[in-house]
Amino acid sequence: MAEHTIQFDLTPERKLKPKSEELGFGKVFTDHMFVMDYTEGQGWHNPRITPYQPLTLDPSSMVFHYGQSVFEGLKAYMTEDNRILLFRPERNFQRLNRSNERLCIPELDEELALEALKQLILTEKEWIPNAEGTSLYIRPFIISTEPFLGVAPSSQYKFIIILSPVGSYYKEGIHPVKILVESEFVRAVAGGTGEAKTAGNYASSLKAQEVASRKEYSQVLWLDGLEKKYIEEVGSMNVFFKINGEIITPALNGSILEGITRNSVIELLKHWGMPVAERRISMEEIREAYKSGQLEEAFGTGTAAVISPIGEFFWNGEKMTVNQGATGPTAKKLYDTITSIQNGKEPDPFNWVVEVDQYITAK
Amino acid sequence: MAEHTIQFDLTPERKLKPKSEELGFGKVFTDHMFVMDYTEGQGWHNPRITPYQPLTLDPSSMVFHYGQSVFEGLKAYMTEDNRILLFRPERNFQRLNRSNERLCIPELDEELALEALKQLILTEKEWIPNAEGTSLYIRPFIISTEPFLGVAPSSQYKFIIILSPVGSYYKEGIHPVKILVESEFVRAVAGGTGEAKTAGNYASSLKAQEVASRKEYSQVLWLDGLEKKYIEEVGSMNVFFKINGEIITPALNGSILEGITRNSVIELLKHWGMPVAERRISMEEIREAYKSGQLEEAFGTGTAAVISPIGEFFWNGEKMTVNQGATGPTAKKLYDTITSIQNGKEPDPFNWVVEVDQYITAK
Ligand SMILES: Cc1ncc(COP(=O)(O)O)c(C=O)c1O
Ligand SMILES: Cc1ncc(COP(=O)(O)O)c(C=O)c1O
Repeated sequence: MAEHTIQFDLTPERKLKPKSEELGFGKVFTDHMFVMDYTEGQGWHNPRITPYQPLTLDPSSMVFHYGQSVFEGLKAYMTEDNRILLFRPERNFQRLNRSNERLCIPELDEELALEALKQLILTEKEWIPNAEGTSLYIRPFIISTEPFLGVAPSSQYKFIIILSPVGSYYKEGIHPVKILVESEFVRAVAGGTGEAKTAGNYASSLKAQEVASRKEYSQVLWLDGLEKKYIEEVGSMNVFFKINGEIITPALNGSILEGITRNSVIELLKHWGMPVAERRISMEEIREAYKSGQLEEAFGTGTAAVISPIGEFFWNGEKMTVNQGATGPTAKKLYDTITSIQNGKEPDPFNWVVEVDQYITAK
Repeated sequence: MAEHTIQFDLTPERKLKPKSEELGFGKVFTDHMFVMDYTEGQGWHNPRITPYQPLTLDPSSMVFHYGQSVFEGLKAYMTEDNRILLFRPERNFQRLNRSNERLCIPELDEELALEALKQLILTEKEWIPNAEGTSLYIRPFIISTEPFLGVAPSSQYKFIIILSPVGSYYKEGIHPVKILVESEFVRAVAGGTGEAKTAGNYASSLKAQEVASRKEYSQVLWLDGLEKKYIEEVGSMNVFFKINGEIITPALNGSILEGITRNSVIELLKHWGMPVAERRISMEEIREAYKSGQLEEAFGTGTAAVISPIGEFFWNGEKMTVNQGATGPTAKKLYDTITSIQNGKEPDPFNWVVEVDQYITAK
């Protein structure tokens, strides 16, 4: 265990913290970060909390060329009574290891990673904003660092956690977005990396997003890569539909990312006794539900926005409005409940939240 | 033009150069590198040749998280009469720009890039090995560097060229490899990024390669992502078959990288009056040709190995030997001709080679 004891190298220099109202997303980082190295033969070693600082990498470092890179995204919340809560963080490290497996990156010790995250958050607790809707965004990631130009798994890696205080996603209240159904570009296909949270998936999604933005759509709805018929995800969120009282989300099929918000939504709906199905769903089925007046709601789910209601789809030259472009009752109820569990305002019947100081074992 | 004048910051410190016989691939780099920056609003600027040195990047630099990264690979050769030759380098920068387009990376000035490459090579000419089969491997690449956690095109990039002296690919003479036909994992699909030379494609290929290596196959043959029937590429090379006297290679279909060696092979075969077809070709067709004794040759093509003969395929539990596991005459003739054009030993009827000092315009 000795070499797994987290070392602390703290800086007395503290950056100026942005005001709650001025918080954006992903541009401001805290004073420290967590770093751990991997070297073949030696395994993961030297876990440490250091001042937030640039990485110094050889230009031949494999991540720049061959893209072995996986990441996670989650948030820490400050409650009104000053407790620090994480939302199902163990799931993020489990998923990180599933991504590692796909990308031939060595497995992480999930407990050590969670412990490291907690220590880092405690070190940076002054950075957790507490205004309504704000949080501390957490970005764990792994990159390949061996200086070698050859297509092969790297023999060296870095696991890093950085933190960024973020503002409310819905500054003017939760509001529905317009979605372009993408029929040319493909996000992922079975046998590819769609299930993994790896850099290349996001790089390949930019082009479709750019086209959608030019047409004034805020996100893209991805169809399956084989037949371009079945619905997969929306932007970088999972997607749900309410059709004639039933809530439906695409089943996990190997090309869809298994969202933690997605899972929480399914659990909550079941808990409420609402009918929910995970199955294949085609765009044609959505169109028919729309035509017959049974398409009641649609929304995306993900860590950043939690719930993102969809007010309009554009597909094959046809515009389909959902719930008159307004946020539906299911989306609203899910948003309110999940965010209230996350920030400790509502009881947590599922044991989803993890309080940070409770579990601290070592220093 | 002023801001496009290449600045020189040279180091008097010279690293020890490896001996020709000891040269490997992609581990040793020269004393200098070329760097140019991009900033939104300002465009590409500050082209410079600097000492080879680590990159200093914020941990939130987008390349680590969202994988906007494209690259190229080509070689410089030292002729017996001490001329420095490049092989169709303009095609690499054209392809780099096509990759840029797909990855939402700003276009490069191809002439400036080629000029930069020539200046860098002249600076490092002592590093070009001249033993049989050796060369100076050239790696131009672009990475996104904006410090921002958000899925969007970066507003900042670096274009870098590094150089690595490399040994002969075939130290013990050209020899055929054994290939596993991959039926589970997918390299690329139409609408994805298969046509682009981007990091994520290589990251996603590692898993299949790992499985193949464990079974003692040296490379994977990729099938199309839709039906897993049609042949796409082999490892990170294009692939050719000779069936009953005709040479066939998969047609460019949006998911195959357009190899420069592939194109040169096609041109050469036509020049020799040999029948060559670019068309869709299924694994079943290869199997039938094998069964009927008409599968005469198979080989991969790419910058690293030039021509890589294939001695065996393994598909669906069946082993198929090609040309009794020996290098075929077409593969051999193509290898000899292309390498001789590249190193200036044979005339170049196609104007493929570009001599480096000839074109130097400014210093
Ligand atoms: C592609 C993609 N799909 C879905 C999600 C939603 O996952 P989660 O709910 O775990 O944030 C994400 C990430 O946030 C994602 O990147
Ligand atoms: C995926 C892939 N296919 C094919 C090739 C062959 O291309 P070229 O002949 O230009 O080297 C390469 C690169 O070398 C490649 O990475």
